[in-house]
Amino acid sequence: MSRSRISPPLVLVNFKCYLEATGSKAVQLAKYAQQVADKTGVTLAVAPQTADLRLVSQQASVPVFAQHIDPITPGSYTGHVLAESVLEAGASGILVNHSECRLGISVIEDTITRAKDLKLETVVCANTSGIAAAVASLGPDMIAVEPPELIGSGVAVSKAKPEVITDTVSRIRRINSDVLILCGAGITSGEDVREALRLGTQGVLVASGIVKAKNQLAAIEDLAGACRPIGKQTNLT
Amino acid sequence: MSRSRISPPLVLVNFKCYLEATGSKAVQLAKYAQQVADKTGVTLAVAPQTADLRLVSQQASVPVFAQHIDPITPGSYTGHVLAESVLEAGASGILVNHSECRLGISVIEDTITRAKDLKLETVVCANTSGIAAAVASLGPDMIAVEPPELIGSGVAVSKAKPEVITDTVSRIRRINSDVLILCGAGITSGEDVREALRLGTQGVLVASGIVKAKNQLAAIEDLAGACRPIGKQTNLT
Amino acid sequence: MSRSRISPPLVLVNFKCYLEATGSKAVQLAKYAQQVADKTGVTLAVAPQTADLRLVSQQASVPVFAQHIDPITPGSYTGHVLAESVLEAGASGILVNHSECRLGISVIEDTITRAKDLKLETVVCANTSGIAAAVASLGPDMIAVEPPELIGSGVAVSKAKPEVITDTVSRIRRINSDVLILCGAGITSGEDVREALRLGTQGVLVASGIVKAKNQLAAIEDLAGACRPIGKQTNLT
Amino acid sequence: MSRSRISPPLVLVNFKCYLEATGSKAVQLAKYAQQVADKTGVTLAVAPQTADLRLVSQQASVPVFAQHIDPITPGSYTGHVLAESVLEAGASGILVNHSECRLGISVIEDTITRAKDLKLETVVCANTSGIAAAVASLGPDMIAVEPPELIGSGVAVSKAKPEVITDTVSRIRRINSDVLILCGAGITSGEDVREALRLGTQGVLVASGIVKAKNQLAAIEDLAGACRPIGKQTNLT
Repeated sequence: MSRSRISPPLVLVNFKCYLEATGSKAVQLAKYAQQVADKTGVTLAVAPQTADLRLVSQQASVPVFAQHIDPITPGSYTGHVLAESVLEAGASGILVNHSECRLGISVIEDTITRAKDLKLETVVCANTSGIAAAVASLGPDMIAVEPPELIGSGVAVSKAKPEVITDTVSRIRRINSDVLILCGAGITSGEDVREALRLGTQGVLVASGIVKAKNQLAAIEDLAGACRPIGKQTNLT
Repeated sequence: MSRSRISPPLVLVNFKCYLEATGSKAVQLAKYAQQVADKTGVTLAVAPQTADLRLVSQQASVPVFAQHIDPITPGSYTGHVLAESVLEAGASGILVNHSECRLGISVIEDTITRAKDLKLETVVCANTSGIAAAVASLGPDMIAVEPPELIGSGVAVSKAKPEVITDTVSRIRRINSDVLILCGAGITSGEDVREALRLGTQGVLVASGIVKAKNQLAAIEDLAGACRPIGKQTNLT
Repeated sequence: MSRSRISPPLVLVNFKCYLEATGSKAVQLAKYAQQVADKTGVTLAVAPQTADLRLVSQQASVPVFAQHIDPITPGSYTGHVLAESVLEAGASGILVNHSECRLGISVIEDTITRAKDLKLETVVCANTSGIAAAVASLGPDMIAVEPPELIGSGVAVSKAKPEVITDTVSRIRRINSDVLILCGAGITSGEDVREALRLGTQGVLVASGIVKAKNQLAAIEDLAGACRPIGKQTNLT
Repeated sequence: MSRSRISPPLVLVNFKCYLEATGSKAVQLAKYAQQVADKTGVTLAVAPQTADLRLVSQQASVPVFAQHIDPITPGSYTGHVLAESVLEAGASGILVNHSECRLGISVIEDTITRAKDLKLETVVCANTSGIAAAVASLGPDMIAVEPPELIGSGVAVSKAKPEVITDTVSRIRRINSDVLILCGAGITSGEDVREALRLGTQGVLVASGIVKAKNQLAAIEDLAGACRPIGKQTNLT
């Protein structure tokens, strides 16, 4: 099993195809992330659209993840996303199998293989505990779990039954002890982040909670603040 | 029917996912295209990978086409290609339904609609005369025809039976008199370009013939040179 | 252009994956259709699920359409639907590109080609006037138009603006004078059928209006009754 | 974890879309399987095309598997395969994720769930040891492993390195002790079956080795003969 080069806890911000995080606004949001990372020491990473990868990588000093690649090698693949192209554009990792971009199980395995070849970190999304356990066998660097009870339901992790997260974490751990586990749903506040970490995850994957926030910077500060080690937090309080 | 803003004849170079046209090499190739366009007055355009759109647009003064977009509006579409993102990255057009990226007929129509909303030019690929005629009803700016007799067969347009092209052109023209028609297969030399134009097309879509050439600049010069009006060509010889 | 062997007007009943039209219930519904066809002389056809094609064909004397085939030739295609298998099971035609089973434009063309080879009638669905015109170039036997204004909106053809249908019919007719045109949305009563025929279509494609009716037989009688020539109808009134 | 109702060892014959196993020929082949099952006591099962499920189920007394279902519930799903329809047609199980019909990981999980609801047995195909281990977490009744070294290479299990099979078996067993494991590639003779069973599998999934055999009955006898307990085999020799 590989070990991620990311130092947890991690807050990974998925820009999706939101206009509030496209082009120059993608750069602005990534700069906010860098600013908070610099101030708090928490690892913050961003996942902008493919067309924005290079611009964001050049203008902000945070790890940049592509939202998707195709498991192809260089060649005749018009319209596809080549791992080498996102790497040269500055990406250090990729999202795989996001619920909005579901992949075949063979495609997931092949994508992880391609990413490893180029030393791109992989975050594979899994929307049930069964799929999370399945994905754990494929050796990704990170798994983002999206319990169905938390997706689109408006239920925050901090309000949900703990088992929603802990069951998935324990199923993954039985198979893979190294993979970082992110909580990929139900995160809207620092309180949610704290609860996610308390339940055994090493970070969060968040999108609208930050991108769609009226004050993006404040939203990042809130989430990142909750990631700091208890000792430091106590000092700050 | 819309009218393309492109002045034909057009040489459109598809970079596919070739390493010889990725990242800094995409920029180099686009600069070659610009150099030849400036010298000859022929319209040259390039279609780099999504991750390279902005870099190429910023560093070379030629029309830039995205290889694919998804017919989505801004929102929760992780891993998709948003029209607004390629537009802000500098693209002025898009390829649609390339043989390596086949789309549903409804997706083609929706993609054309999205592109028109943002004033992106559309080049829809069609691999048979029937599909070319079908696509002509959807109102794209350009159609790139790829006669099966010419794809992957190594047969050049200039060596093929003229009907391979003229039949498709006439089927398109019965339905759509405005659309620009590109020859999208069988182009490896200036002679092929001349023949394609003589048979009723307004340009060519070419990939490996230029990208994989030992001397990319010379290959572009050869193809673009064949696009100049007969008068001018005579003068130059 | 081919000519359909179906005598219009046609009422084609799509069984979808409704339990009310699965297995033995598919047979019952097809027998109702046969009963009404025998009594009225109107052409009635049914499109049951693949697993029910043979049973329905054996037990009811109406034309049977498959809901989908894959454009494959016999061979290693586990899980696909081979044209030969539905033909041997008794199908005389196929639906193509239904809105619940959208296909690539090349797949549509290849499917039509395979169907013609085996003399299976093709009904290609089209959800906009542009797509209907496009599909007309591919030479199917029938086109089922599903104007977006009528799909899922609960608006019946008989209540809609006539242009919703007539515009599509005239776009198709400019390209293809032989193809039968079915109205594929907004049909819930005999009145709708009469209006659809009056506006230039040669029949209807209907699903829930019949399958989900409390009295399936009465629903078929209502729709078929509206298909009889004016003269006969006058006699009956 | 569920327990399969199938008594191993199992020879499961995939009819694919071969003409030699379509319609009346599917029935003939299934009757051969029944004949050998009756004579040898070995469990033989068949996977005909969807359109042939009912005919085969009615005319031959062997377990019948569908080659694919969609994870849908009854409703508006034109062209899809409903679990209820294959069950009513006589199927007692399904193939899932065959290499010719690859599915998303979520689709695999949802398909297994639907199958369990209807008590259909599931055979999930896996083409690498990683995917086999992943699939083991999803709780299918059987996993058919198709080591890439054996697919399409013409290499028989009995000639390959034992680790090709034993590694996959042991990866599956670490996660799931109940699932039946079938060898899904490299089976062309009784010798291959014997080797597959010796290496820890409980049966085989075979297609062309039987369907394309000049003498289908003899081919089934050869494979089934190799499944008999050593004691019995000795007696027979």
